[in-house]
Amino acid sequence: MASTPSSPKEHHFVDIHPVLSDDSDNLNRLRDSQSSDTTVNFRAGGDGEGRERRLQRNVWTFSRQIHLESGIGMFDVEKKGSVEGESSGNARGKSLGGAGATGGDAGHRKGYFDMFRTKSALGAKQNSLMPSWKENEPDPDNAEGIPGSAGADDRVNKSVPAGRYFAALRGPELDQVREYEDILLPKDEVWPFLLRFPVGCFGICLGLGSQAILWGALSSSPAMAFLRVSPNINLALWVLALAILVSVSVAYTLKCVFYFEAIRREYFHPVRVNFFFAPWIACMFLAIGVPPRWAPRHLHPAIWCGFIAPVFVLELKVYGQWLSGGKRRLCKVANPSSHLSVVGNFVGAILAAKVGWGEAGKFLWAIGLAHYLCLFVTLYQRLTTSQALPKELHPVYSMFIATPSAASIAWHAIYGEFDAVSRTFYFIALFLYCSLVVRINFFRGFKFSVAWWSYTFPMTTASLAAIRYAEEVTCFFSKGLALSLSLMSSTIVSLMLVSTLLHAFVWRSLFPNDLAIAITKDRSDGAKAQDKEKKASKKNYGLKRWAKQSSLSLVSSIRRGHSGDKDLK
Amino acid sequence: MASTPSSPKEHHFVDIHPVLSDDSDNLNRLRDSQSSDTTVNFRAGGDGEGRERRLQRNVWTFSRQIHLESGIGMFDVEKKGSVEGESSGNARGKSLGGAGATGGDAGHRKGYFDMFRTKSALGAKQNSLMPSWKENEPDPDNAEGIPGSAGADDRVNKSVPAGRYFAALRGPELDQVREYEDILLPKDEVWPFLLRFPVGCFGICLGLGSQAILWGALSSSPAMAFLRVSPNINLALWVLALAILVSVSVAYTLKCVFYFEAIRREYFHPVRVNFFFAPWIACMFLAIGVPPRWAPRHLHPAIWCGFIAPVFVLELKVYGQWLSGGKRRLCKVANPSSHLSVVGNFVGAILAAKVGWGEAGKFLWAIGLAHYLCLFVTLYQRLTTSQALPKELHPVYSMFIATPSAASIAWHAIYGEFDAVSRTFYFIALFLYCSLVVRINFFRGFKFSVAWWSYTFPMTTASLAAIRYAEEVTCFFSKGLALSLSLMSSTIVSLMLVSTLLHAFVWRSLFPNDLAIAITKDRSDGAKAQDKEKKASKKNYGLKRWAKQSSLSLVSSIRRGHSGDKDLK
Amino acid sequence: MASTPSSPKEHHFVDIHPVLSDDSDNLNRLRDSQSSDTTVNFRAGGDGEGRERRLQRNVWTFSRQIHLESGIGMFDVEKKGSVEGESSGNARGKSLGGAGATGGDAGHRKGYFDMFRTKSALGAKQNSLMPSWKENEPDPDNAEGIPGSAGADDRVNKSVPAGRYFAALRGPELDQVREYEDILLPKDEVWPFLLRFPVGCFGICLGLGSQAILWGALSSSPAMAFLRVSPNINLALWVLALAILVSVSVAYTLKCVFYFEAIRREYFHPVRVNFFFAPWIACMFLAIGVPPRWAPRHLHPAIWCGFIAPVFVLELKVYGQWLSGGKRRLCKVANPSSHLSVVGNFVGAILAAKVGWGEAGKFLWAIGLAHYLCLFVTLYQRLTTSQALPKELHPVYSMFIATPSAASIAWHAIYGEFDAVSRTFYFIALFLYCSLVVRINFFRGFKFSVAWWSYTFPMTTASLAAIRYAEEVTCFFSKGLALSLSLMSSTIVSLMLVSTLLHAFVWRSLFPNDLAIAITKDRSDGAKAQDKEKKASKKNYGLKRWAKQSSLSLVSSIRRGHSGDKDLK
Repeated sequence: MASTPSSPKEHHFVDIHPVLSDDSDNLNRLRDSQSSDTTVNFRAGGDGEGRERRLQRNVWTFSRQIHLESGIGMFDVEKKGSVEGESSGNARGKSLGGAGATGGDAGHRKGYFDMFRTKSALGAKQNSLMPSWKENEPDPDNAEGIPGSAGADDRVNKSVPAGRYFAALRGPELDQVREYEDILLPKDEVWPFLLRFPVGCFGICLGLGSQAILWGALSSSPAMAFLRVSPNINLALWVLALAILVSVSVAYTLKCVFYFEAIRREYFHPVRVNFFFAPWIACMFLAIGVPPRWAPRHLHPAIWCGFIAPVFVLELKVYGQWLSGGKRRLCKVANPSSHLSVVGNFVGAILAAKVGWGEAGKFLWAIGLAHYLCLFVTLYQRLTTSQALPKELHPVYSMFIATPSAASIAWHAIYGEFDAVSRTFYFIALFLYCSLVVRINFFRGFKFSVAWWSYTFPMTTASLAAIRYAEEVTCFFSKGLALSLSLMSSTIVSLMLVSTLLHAFVWRSLFPNDLAIAITKDRSDGAKAQDKEKKASKKNYGLKRWAKQSSLSLVSSIRRGHSGDKDLK
Repeated sequence: MASTPSSPKEHHFVDIHPVLSDDSDNLNRLRDSQSSDTTVNFRAGGDGEGRERRLQRNVWTFSRQIHLESGIGMFDVEKKGSVEGESSGNARGKSLGGAGATGGDAGHRKGYFDMFRTKSALGAKQNSLMPSWKENEPDPDNAEGIPGSAGADDRVNKSVPAGRYFAALRGPELDQVREYEDILLPKDEVWPFLLRFPVGCFGICLGLGSQAILWGALSSSPAMAFLRVSPNINLALWVLALAILVSVSVAYTLKCVFYFEAIRREYFHPVRVNFFFAPWIACMFLAIGVPPRWAPRHLHPAIWCGFIAPVFVLELKVYGQWLSGGKRRLCKVANPSSHLSVVGNFVGAILAAKVGWGEAGKFLWAIGLAHYLCLFVTLYQRLTTSQALPKELHPVYSMFIATPSAASIAWHAIYGEFDAVSRTFYFIALFLYCSLVVRINFFRGFKFSVAWWSYTFPMTTASLAAIRYAEEVTCFFSKGLALSLSLMSSTIVSLMLVSTLLHAFVWRSLFPNDLAIAITKDRSDGAKAQDKEKKASKKNYGLKRWAKQSSLSLVSSIRRGHSGDKDLK
Repeated sequence: MASTPSSPKEHHFVDIHPVLSDDSDNLNRLRDSQSSDTTVNFRAGGDGEGRERRLQRNVWTFSRQIHLESGIGMFDVEKKGSVEGESSGNARGKSLGGAGATGGDAGHRKGYFDMFRTKSALGAKQNSLMPSWKENEPDPDNAEGIPGSAGADDRVNKSVPAGRYFAALRGPELDQVREYEDILLPKDEVWPFLLRFPVGCFGICLGLGSQAILWGALSSSPAMAFLRVSPNINLALWVLALAILVSVSVAYTLKCVFYFEAIRREYFHPVRVNFFFAPWIACMFLAIGVPPRWAPRHLHPAIWCGFIAPVFVLELKVYGQWLSGGKRRLCKVANPSSHLSVVGNFVGAILAAKVGWGEAGKFLWAIGLAHYLCLFVTLYQRLTTSQALPKELHPVYSMFIATPSAASIAWHAIYGEFDAVSRTFYFIALFLYCSLVVRINFFRGFKFSVAWWSYTFPMTTASLAAIRYAEEVTCFFSKGLALSLSLMSSTIVSLMLVSTLLHAFVWRSLFPNDLAIAITKDRSDGAKAQDKEKKASKKNYGLKRWAKQSSLSLVSSIRRGHSGDKDLK
């Protein structure tokens, strides 16, 4: 994109240039209008570089316009012959640098990513960088007190409204950027590893943790004794799950330390927020599935307290948002991954039973039931107000199985018998399982992503419930069902594991740029700007007026960012 | 309508004629525009007379043009002197042929109905008929490859979108065609019997089958022993129900063989689809209510398997449509008759308990509960997105009673005690019963139809639940309640029976033309076309241009039919 | 407002006056347009007076214009030196008279309030007043047969549609009038006491009655024996609650006798209608909490019958409205105070258990469960169609706690054990309690009103459930929880009591004008009229035409009132 000087866009600029030198004020206005036109209207890094350059020579002005226009055109010029990125998972066009690329312009490129850095970590650099930006800013129209740095800062603002995510993203996991949307970071470059490391990675821990429990159950359950499963599989899986949980946690902690703004954006993402429950659920899975030879008869309740506390706090937050009726009300944000925010209660209840705190388990079960009810009905109704539910079925839908399975196991654990309630939930899960299996072809055709791991643990949970049921109703059919469900779940997990390893080490595309966190906060995107221009030209406005309004539109779009709706509690 | 030659419509045509002979291309265009204009672009009877008259004169070309307009005018011409129909239930105007009419033109008349015939049965005939139609097609504007026969074929396409039914039909059962809507078959003629035989007829079997169970319970229940009801009533009712079920099944099987397209359309009808559960529920009713002297202690489980399998498959389909969020999502298609798609689970659970498969019964009960919950909440909320819920109460609403009653009986059957869960469901049914009884005047003022039978079995189910409750809580009040509910239910069924017999054999109006299945697939209905013309004339278009766009509108409307949204899985 | 002649509005009139004297017909038109402009377009009393006056002399015309404009300007002139109102709670501007003001113009002022009087009580007065009004009506534009009296009568019509309340009112309790809305009664005057006495006052009885039960439980529960609470507190509270219930009932009965139309309007108010359950729930609280020394072992079932009958009738009505899908369908009117219409079932179930009618209690419990489910899911979903749910949390939200707590206690009472069902409901209530407590700052910033009392009883109910739970699970934590919840509830009730006494006797602002019942039935409010005028002036209409349409708009607005939608069953 814009890599050769003869591209029509730049040609356009050449035509305008002489005119602009006459009236530099007008130039700025036009340039701004142009930049807001081409969907790249305020990129930190590109600007920063352009600015430094302009200081040195005058001819660079032209080059700078290209930067404003293409956002990263500069890199093409500068980095001719520089090392090409080693992996370009989903980067379109040429990948311009690896995650760990070094060189004289590394600092410049980092400028992009600085906006997602933890505020305190930025400190000194921002102070040295931003003022120079401001004093070099020649735009007289910006006299209204919206300094550029504030604008840049603002775009990474903590409160990206829920509606923006729905507007800018698509796909069942809201992880693909719509075509006409601009994003804050360069699409063609590989971002730093931590920025590409999504919270969904905890899904791997969910999948492996639940597998560890499953193989523990297979080896210890009397109903499955005929299989003679060695408890060592449980042990191995558990150690693997623990290792991966530790690694993922370390990585995400680092992300938390260095790129807190990115985490903040993941937290405000209507789908991703549910994955914040995943780490704690994964921990609870590990605590539940701890190999018998290492585990005391009863775990210490402190373990339960430590793991359930963050879940409870998150629930107070998330359920409160559902109820209080802002932009994140249930009828808008409900999507299959919301099950993650409910299933924690049931997993917590199982763990509570294991540590001997039955009443606490009952408390969690009740919370889970109430919110599962709301969620289940809402999802089944497929309200037209819900924006995040694609028509197509998808791995996401397997989440439907997780909660009733977990509820069934939890009831059995806390009330001690697999009675009517347990059965009802188990059978509901079973029916939903059938319902998804017959629609198996809807599950194909989606790009693999690490989030898929979260869709493996529901199957494992269903297998666990089936084993519990086979213990209660010992017959050929129930045992066969438990066995086949377990096999299916293990097969899927194995496939996922292989797939993940291939993506990670062979194709090096496990962590593509996480575009979802880099959407702009305001809506002055390309489509809109183009519309505006089209209208303007139709209505035969004078050039003067057009230029003015365009530059003002930039200002006002920034200001709109400032006054964006604050529906986030 | 259009019975005198001086009616404005025909006069209009005569005026145009001379002009048309000059420029036959333009004529075609104008004619087409005219036909889409007058909202009668495929109607048999009304135009027929005008056409006959004009025959005697010269203008065959013109007559043919009218055929294109009316779609089947041609047949009227040919059929001069044919026997007039002997019964015209609710046919408006003159009925032009009985269901069993014979004669040389029977084949032609059948041409209407051929489009609803099973595709394989059409084979040869279509090949002989359609090409002749096609080769007479002089329309040069249709050169774009949309031959008339394909269009006609397409209108009976399998995939009438759900939205079309809501747009074209009204009434609580979506069985009345809106005024401005055109239908594919002649309204003024009595259609073949099988085409007029709706799936709702299985409602009769539901009503009688449940009555047989009720009288069996009255004669055998210890709580009702004081009535000394003879078991012969049960026997007689059961035989009657069986006989009617067999007859209805045979008739519907014939419909399936000969008019499969009509059944396909019933299946896509958002309300009718629920009645496809009725045959299997009726079978299960008969299996549950089998007279004790004939019944073994336990029925063979194969009976259960045979009856529940189609229900289960239908459920996977229907619930999947609710969940997957197309045009048939729950929040859009929910209506009281949806209860039929849920109640089958509970009836199946009762039968499962009777054949001794308690766990299978619990499985069905769980499925039923989950979906009943969603349906109940959705119906109670009366979401504004739901298009099929009229404000008025109606027999349909009695469906609300059926499901909780059946759930109560089923729980008692599978778990062996009339405990809190059974009671809760029974009492919910009782309250809803009260709620409907006090609104009794909302139930009047609706035309009798065979679908009403489906609204009798909820009362019977409530009576059965009341008898079970009276067995559990033996007091004057519970017995009195059971008795009065039983009497009310039996009275209603008797009234329905008399009413049905009167409609069937005295007034011969039991099976009116089933307009709901004959709606057009595209929306180029009268209202729209009129709007378009009005706008066109306002904007002062030249005649040429206007004529052209009109003829194109026909073409494009057909094409739109082709590319209609395919949301049906 | 408009109390001095130099206010700009009146000045405006002075300018116009000479012009108008030329063409008095035009004057009337302009005047009317002006009046509909200033949001006071048809007040009964003001007009009546104006009319009488105009008869006497011509000079008064001007004065009348002011009345039309300000609605009550007349009083300023007439009542110079009259006694000023003694309390003006929330009256804006100068309060012009107390509730019991006497004098020559008392009759005139009463004219306002007459429209809310019971129809039979009006009888003679109306007959003497209205005809004189009609025959004195000089307005030639009203020749179209819309006599003023009919209009006035109609505005107090029984059927204010639900939509009007949502359109005209705001706030979580729909008790504040929107700025641009006109109301039928003078805002600046203190209305008669009975008109200002809302049905929400029964909330006081709810709060105190439940406190009496709480202290009874604290003194008698074995789990709370360590507190050694004297049963005399229960006694004292019970007597107080009884006394207040009797007083409030007497007052409301008087309102019912004298201002039946006002009660009718409260009944049609989408939020207030739920408070009609409050008196009967308060009675049931007193029956449940009757001090042990006075109470027989079992109360007589007749008490239960007497208290539950009105609740049941109201439920049939309200739930029927939810279901039947008019303007009062659940998805539109659902708001936290709807819990009041559900909690009655559970309280009734507790009382049923106390009088020994367990089965009746189970019946009520089932009704309660079914509707609680619908309500809970609907409220949690926060459907966008629901118009009465403000974003802010508010005392109203405490209602969420009431129903599950009551359901928990009721299950314990009727089934005799605090089992899984009881626990589940209790824990749901507990979680919702937590959820609200952490959002405590949302509860601030609202004006105290007597309706707040209704938000105290949920806490008390939660405390009662906590005590029952502490009896079942006797440990430090459960006892501590019960104790702290009880203390919190008692503290809040004490604060409310003090606050109420202060408002009632010190600040005399306990009963402000109940604006919510005095909204106009039609929508010809100020905003609309202004819009119309703005448009008219923009489009450069001639004065003549403008004047004409303005006067017609008055007529048509009245007619619109006549033909308002009749969605009320």
